[in-house]
Order: sequence, then structure tokens, then C-alpha cells
Amino acid sequence: MAKVFTLEQRILKRNSEVAEENRRGFDAQGVFVVSLASSPGSGKTSLLEKSLALLREELSVGVVEGDVQTDRDARRIEALGVPVVQVVTNGTCHLDAQMVQGALAHLETGRMELLFIENVGNLVCPAAYDLGEHLRIVLSSTTEGEDKPLKYPAMFRRSQAMVLNKIDLLPYVPFDLAEARTMALRVNPSLEIFETSCTTGAGIPEFCQWIVQKLSETSAA
Amino acid sequence: MAKVFTLEQRILKRNSEVAEENRRGFDAQGVFVVSLASSPGSGKTSLLEKSLALLREELSVGVVEGDVQTDRDARRIEALGVPVVQVVTNGTCHLDAQMVQGALAHLETGRMELLFIENVGNLVCPAAYDLGEHLRIVLSSTTEGEDKPLKYPAMFRRSQAMVLNKIDLLPYVPFDLAEARTMALRVNPSLEIFETSCTTGAGIPEFCQWIVQKLSETSAA
Repeated sequence: MAKVFTLEQRILKRNSEVAEENRRGFDAQGVFVVSLASSPGSGKTSLLEKSLALLREELSVGVVEGDVQTDRDARRIEALGVPVVQVVTNGTCHLDAQMVQGALAHLETGRMELLFIENVGNLVCPAAYDLGEHLRIVLSSTTEGEDKPLKYPAMFRRSQAMVLNKIDLLPYVPFDLAEARTMALRVNPSLEIFETSCTTGAGIPEFCQWIVQKLSETSAA
Repeated sequence: MAKVFTLEQRILKRNSEVAEENRRGFDAQGVFVVSLASSPGSGKTSLLEKSLALLREELSVGVVEGDVQTDRDARRIEALGVPVVQVVTNGTCHLDAQMVQGALAHLETGRMELLFIENVGNLVCPAAYDLGEHLRIVLSSTTEGEDKPLKYPAMFRRSQAMVLNKIDLLPYVPFDLAEARTMALRVNPSLEIFETSCTTGAGIPEFCQWIVQKLSETSAA
């Protein structure tokens, strides 16, 4: 077992090195990079669709889509006319920094101000892999129960914001917003929390405004 | 990279050996073992709560609960008076056969006819690990979209049944039951499909009846 652990550490160390290369490249090009992670079906691609519609009005944007199989999500982004590259992991449960680096070769990031990376739908494994992003966002939805931050703490601890999606379904599901907030903040007291619905559009402008603010702060630094 | 692959193969080979040991042990004791996997928040524990209420009337039952952190699910099962053991994986993204074997030491399986194993909420990694179970069930819910079988095919391919949960939310979500069935059967044409709601109880008796039927077939063989 010790050998496995050492090998895993070596893989993560190599990942961190490439993530730092990615981040230096992003900084040199002036691209602000935001990653999205969640369970399958929490609404990562829907959040992107709704947010890109607003963000592209003031920024040049691009997307890297990660999926275990299929290019279904990339086609949804492509339909918006936003530059997108699909990474199919072929069974691997997370994106890593090398996969992102490989994808960048197919995107003109030099012309971009904002790049989103949508991870594979998985609340566990992606937490361990730095991709070189500037902001990490985790989604959770009102249909999943309030306790996901307690049960999958690493992802919520390593994110700067939680998007609580599908608030339009609140009348139909046993979900307590206050309890969800309390549980999330117990795991990560500095987590920004947004409540959104990709069906009604609620909360999307506030979320986009925060992204733009974070981008400005980073550019100013 | 070749080395990683070899090591992964070795881990999976060792897992299969222990899974076979588990299965032989289950068969010798006459315990029928059913595993549940899904995204976080699809309703695995709720399905267990509803199903155990029916199944325990005719069978002696037990549960192994797998979670990355917390014993919240085990406490929900314990509240029903059903014997349960919690496995906390401490960050690991799946149960493996050794973890199950370790848990069995704390359960009187000799007195059981039916044992459920609830995996960590993850549609990717658990697919690769045989636990020694007789039946594998994957849950998907109407709030997650129809395309999960296409995007996470391994899990749906290796399961005998799919439980399509939260059908009480159908009026409020853009979800097409017929399309969901088509997509699932495209990935695994022999998949049994159950439509359930743990809120209204719809479909639970049919699901339980099928479990009992599968148990009888195995005992008769």
C-alpha cells in the first residue's frame, strides 16, 4: 500500500507542476480561468449557457469541457458561438492539469479574457487536481439534499464559491436553504454562496457580476 | 504512464480476488447482496429507507453504508432498526472489495437473507470495483437530465437495473422519460428500468418485488 501512496503523491506533484505552468501561461496572456465542478446533473453546462450569454457581452470568453464520454456538453456551448474544446477522459474520473494543457493548444487563449473549465461530474476526485485555474466553483442543487458539503468536504473546502442551483424546485423538494448554507459554511467559512435557477435565470446576473469582479481584482493585482 | 497502468491493473486484480472471496462467503451463508451506486443526491439512502420498510417484512436484512465522510446515512438506516455498518473511505472515491470484507466482520451476515451495499456517491470510479455483490443497481434521477447513461456508460453497462428516481418532480423539470429509457437501453440493452419516487412511494413495491424475485432465482440455482 505504501507504494501506491507514493505513486499517487508523485502523480499529484507532477500535476501541481503542470498546473503552475498553466497558471503562469494564463497570467502571461491575461486570461482569467474559472473551473466548475459538481455531481453529474447539478447543472454545470446549464449555468455556463446562462452565464456566457451575459458575460460575452463584455468579455471574450472560451470553454474547456471535460467529460468521461461524449461531446454533448461541448456541442451545447458551440451552439452559443463560444469557442470550446472538448476533453474526453475515456473513463478517467477527473480532469488533470496535463489534459487542460493539451486542450489549450486548440484554443486561442491569447484573445481571451475569461476561460471556463467544466470538470467531469464528480464531487470526489476532481478536488485533488489543481488545473491552474484562478477560481474554483462547486455547484450543488436543491434536489441533492443539504448535506453534500459535509459528505464531500474536500471539494467544498477547496472552492471559493458554491452555486446552489435549481432554486426554482424549492417548492417541490424537502430542502432547507438556511441549513444548506450552514452546512457549507461549516466546511468552508469563507465560501461565497449564490442561489441560482438556470430555468428562471434567478441569481445568474449576481453570479456573473462576482466573476467579473474577481477578474478585475486579479487583473489589478 | 505505463507503470501507473500496471499498478492500477494489479489493484483491480487484487480487488477481483477479494470480491470473489466475498461472493463465495455470501453464497455459503445464503445472503443475497445488492449494491447501489449513483451521483451524490440521487436518493440511494431514501430508496433504501423506503424499500427496507417493505422488504424487512419478509426477509432479514442488513446494510453496509459507504461514504467519503460522515455516518449520516448509516444513522438514517439505524433509525429503522436495521443492522448497519458504516465504511468511511476518508477521501477515497469508491468502495472496494477489501473495505466490504472489513465491514462484514461487524455484521452478523449468517442471520441475513439480504444485504444492501450503498456505495459512495460517484458515477465514475465505483464502476471498476467488483464488491462481490450479486446485483448491481444504478440510480439516476429526473433532475439530472436524460443523458447520464451516455456520459457515464461504464456504470450503466455493469448494472442489472436502473432506478429512475424522483418521478414526482416530472411536472417541474425538463425531463423526457421515453428519451431517458432509450439512452439507457442504448448503453445496456438488458437493463431493467424502474421508475420511483421516494416522496410518494411510487414504484417502490415493484422494485422490491424484483429484488425478491432475483433473490429467489439465485437461491434456487
